[in-house]
Amino acid sequence: MNLRQEALQFHREHQGKLTMVTKVGLKNEYDLSLAYTPGVAEPCKEIQTDKDLSFEYTCRGNMVGVVTDGTRVLGLGDIGPEASMPVMEGKAVLYKLLGDVDAIPICLDTKDAAKFVETVRLLQPCFAGINLEDIESPKCFEIEKQLNNVMEIPVFHDDQHGTAIACLATVIGALRLVKKDLEEVRIVVNGAGAAGTAIVQLLLHAGAQDVIMLDSRGIMAEGMNMRRVNSVQAMLLPKTNQQKLQGGLKEAVQGADVLIGVSAPGVFTAQTISCMNRDAIVLALCNPDPEIAYEAAKAAGVKVAGTGRSDSPNQVNNVLVFPGLFRGAIDVRARKINDAMKLAAAYAIADLVDEQQLREDYVVPNVFDTRVAPAVAAAVARAAMDTGVARLKKDPEKVRTEAAARIKGV
Amino acid sequence: MNLRQEALQFHREHQGKLTMVTKVGLKNEYDLSLAYTPGVAEPCKEIQTDKDLSFEYTCRGNMVGVVTDGTRVLGLGDIGPEASMPVMEGKAVLYKLLGDVDAIPICLDTKDAAKFVETVRLLQPCFAGINLEDIESPKCFEIEKQLNNVMEIPVFHDDQHGTAIACLATVIGALRLVKKDLEEVRIVVNGAGAAGTAIVQLLLHAGAQDVIMLDSRGIMAEGMNMRRVNSVQAMLLPKTNQQKLQGGLKEAVQGADVLIGVSAPGVFTAQTISCMNRDAIVLALCNPDPEIAYEAAKAAGVKVAGTGRSDSPNQVNNVLVFPGLFRGAIDVRARKINDAMKLAAAYAIADLVDEQQLREDYVVPNVFDTRVAPAVAAAVARAAMDTGVARLKKDPEKVRTEAAARIKGV
Repeated sequence: MNLRQEALQFHREHQGKLTMVTKVGLKNEYDLSLAYTPGVAEPCKEIQTDKDLSFEYTCRGNMVGVVTDGTRVLGLGDIGPEASMPVMEGKAVLYKLLGDVDAIPICLDTKDAAKFVETVRLLQPCFAGINLEDIESPKCFEIEKQLNNVMEIPVFHDDQHGTAIACLATVIGALRLVKKDLEEVRIVVNGAGAAGTAIVQLLLHAGAQDVIMLDSRGIMAEGMNMRRVNSVQAMLLPKTNQQKLQGGLKEAVQGADVLIGVSAPGVFTAQTISCMNRDAIVLALCNPDPEIAYEAAKAAGVKVAGTGRSDSPNQVNNVLVFPGLFRGAIDVRARKINDAMKLAAAYAIADLVDEQQLREDYVVPNVFDTRVAPAVAAAVARAAMDTGVARLKKDPEKVRTEAAARIKGV
Repeated sequence: MNLRQEALQFHREHQGKLTMVTKVGLKNEYDLSLAYTPGVAEPCKEIQTDKDLSFEYTCRGNMVGVVTDGTRVLGLGDIGPEASMPVMEGKAVLYKLLGDVDAIPICLDTKDAAKFVETVRLLQPCFAGINLEDIESPKCFEIEKQLNNVMEIPVFHDDQHGTAIACLATVIGALRLVKKDLEEVRIVVNGAGAAGTAIVQLLLHAGAQDVIMLDSRGIMAEGMNMRRVNSVQAMLLPKTNQQKLQGGLKEAVQGADVLIGVSAPGVFTAQTISCMNRDAIVLALCNPDPEIAYEAAKAAGVKVAGTGRSDSPNQVNNVLVFPGLFRGAIDVRARKINDAMKLAAAYAIADLVDEQQLREDYVVPNVFDTRVAPAVAAAVARAAMDTGVARLKKDPEKVRTEAAARIKGV
């Protein structure tokens, strides 16, 4: 059987990948009288007096909705809510195995941003957090912004911020290897979609001073024709390309230290990247076919290369991020996932590869390294408490050890 | 510890009662490449060409949303969506243990019927069926009616129809014991709320000819002041109380064969029910405190008594109904749950107590009898196929044996 047939059989065999189970043994009618009537009325009454107790007395406390409208699924595009279900379910599987987070796939039958927002708002009482997934750009920005205004639980668009955090973690590790400072390097981000702009934003938050962003038409600069600029790009332009460079990828990468691709397969050639600065770093994140293959980038003289693929070294994948991020956010009942928490997550990932271990082909931990999610959870929990968005206090070390104990891994 | 303390500890100990687990073993990266990228794209593409395949390739096929707005929870009233979560979660536990249905608690933060309907409609791609729960009357009628118009998956308000089916099953068993025909007996239903009207409706569908309905102000009759009548009651009045009886409960029960209470604790006195016909049947379903206690009803000369309580014989509880009903409806991918399926469920339950077993204190099976859900599932699946609402064909006997094999029980 080929991959296609095996994947279909795999999904059909058990009617998908997720099932609900009861956490508690119900051995007899007495247990049932606690779990259901009449005993169940007691937690109901408690929660009625304090809504926050719903996080403690119900499964809500560990539940994250993985919500999509199916408009931009993998590389498949707008395939609709029903067809996006296998991906949301797969995401939920990763949440479970790598973060012990109970994730529920929610595929909404609307393409309207306002309806999407209102639906998620009405679902809030069931969840501790919301993972937005596979929503087309620029609608995803509007949805995330509006939800962040109306929701009291964290809302996180993984395609933007998960990618940005994993990318930053890899950049940090690579720069440590080549002994360059984030504040001093020139970073080129090729691709100005949802992932690209999130990467630029997080790099700037992390202290990068010299970032150049390109869309499919070339280098972006403040004052350029605003018709090709969305609201997030417009916000970033004053902070990027300070030297007002013009031109295309070739002009941008000249002398650059880091090149990040979130664009299209094959758009980085050996020739293009050969004119980067010494000890160049190239992260070609287009998936499954990167802007340049790992081996080709290395052959072109790049010091550190990375892709989104599992069959090459330095895999940059947001599975490094979201299980631990939500584990930590939930554990301290965070109201938001703010920039401090995102940065903390990136550094926690990078820090798992210490100076002695750093190698050209190992600047970021493996996605199945079970230390990652506990470390991310602890760092995120600490940052949430430090920035005042946590509703609970919890020792970050306890967050880490508890996460390590409950996470099974793949 | 008392029940209150034990129930609170029970719920707090494990942060609720439900968790998600992966159905499939993921032993290595290859398995993950089937469950997630790149393999997951294959079922996505298949579903894109035929939405119905989402029932086969994803967990949707076994998922039922248990949806409430928290406006009428247990006897607690309008306690809000957060506080209703323990009950929805408890319901989901029963779905799992007694029907092997994956039920997701969905508590919506709106009291607006139109918003409720729209939200459930947008959630349709994630579910094989919708169980409406604990919604105040008369809003529940409007919501159910509108959803039945727009949804392609079954929508079932359990507080109405689950109660009605369990009640009809018990009436059938009791009438078999006393050798009276449903078509010939006088049945008094005290209580004209959502459960009461659903009971009257189903009794009429089952062939009952002489049904008298009372609300809190007394006997209801066609032509009465319409200001006190909701749309469902109005639809039932021409089919009930053909003799135009007037008065209260006392006048109604005079010579009646069956008295069903879905009203308020203690409203049936020994004196009232003592003037019923010989071999009287009294089902006092107000919960947890019935209209008359089982023993008191028996002491007043009633032949068969039943309540909603687990500590008395003849427990009339919709847990007899919903797990098997949705098991069967899902198994043949029914578009609706129609009256034929409801009647089939009631008879399937009643038929599990055969003539030799029938006793005054055993006219309906125990709620934990694991034969119930498979029998209900088979009967419901058959009725769905017979009435053309099933999208799949499946041998009912196979539905029964497969259900029996997968259901664990409590």
